Amino acid sequence: AQLALERDYEAHRDFETRYRVLMETSQDALVLMSAASGRITDCNQAAARVLGGSAEALVGCNLESEVEANGSDDFIDSLAGASAENIKSGVSVVARRSGRKISIHPTLFRAAGERTFLCRLETETATDGADIEIS
Amino acid sequence: AQLALERDYEAHRDFETRYRVLMETSQDALVLMSAASGRITDCNQAAARVLGGSAEALVGCNLESEVEANGSDDFIDSLAGASAENIKSGVSVVARRSGRKISIHPTLFRAAGERTFLCRLETETATDGADIEIS
Repeated sequence: AQLALERDYEAHRDFETRYRVLMETSQDALVLMSAASGRITDCNQAAARVLGGSAEALVGCNLESEVEANGSDDFIDSLAGASAENIKSGVSVVARRSGRKISIHPTLFRAAGERTFLCRLETETATDGADIEIS
Repeated sequence: AQLALERDYEAHRDFETRYRVLMETSQDALVLMSAASGRITDCNQAAARVLGGSAEALVGCNLESEVEANGSDDFIDSLAGASAENIKSGVSVVARRSGRKISIHPTLFRAAGERTFLCRLETETATDGADIEIS
């Protein structure tokens, strides 16, 4: 049983690596947020650029406090609602650090007993110069 | 020690779930391929659409036999080369099942002791009607 557990353990370490490679090579700006605490549990470089700040600084922060929402609805309720809808509307907010208008496209899932949102951040049409990137 | 291993095991199951959610919600067409065997080890729905066929049918297939390459270079060498470059050129091929021109953007990584390519498939300009999608 110990051996089987160790074999499984190896297989799951593989998924951790795959997960990290997917996050970092993704062209999407991705944030994982705990539904219970509202805190960012992971965030790729693309998302850090969109929100303004480093991924290291953003992990552990409350996502809601990083953005300014349009409505008065509860932030997590809005995400849960958008996640449940089939239409891909997203939740429109403004990122406080970068000043960018973004649309949050959430997917709610359960991992290790905790409800987690995977949020894809889409930048909306630039209203200032913040979207100009030198490459 | 057993308890610690089990706790780790739980944490790694979490990564498996995260990995699967990332794959399926990604807007990119993604294929994982073993560098040793050339076989597709995983493939999301977006990639299955691009290659033509179901993800279930594609897993286990040789990626090279799913595509027609332009040059005479060894397929895996081409992927390794493109993965090593900083310029994002990609490897141009035609998907046999769908007839689509695609550009493969590979990232080589090592997981559970095995070298794996994460391949992002970009469809090039449509040459026929295959790119028209009804949404």
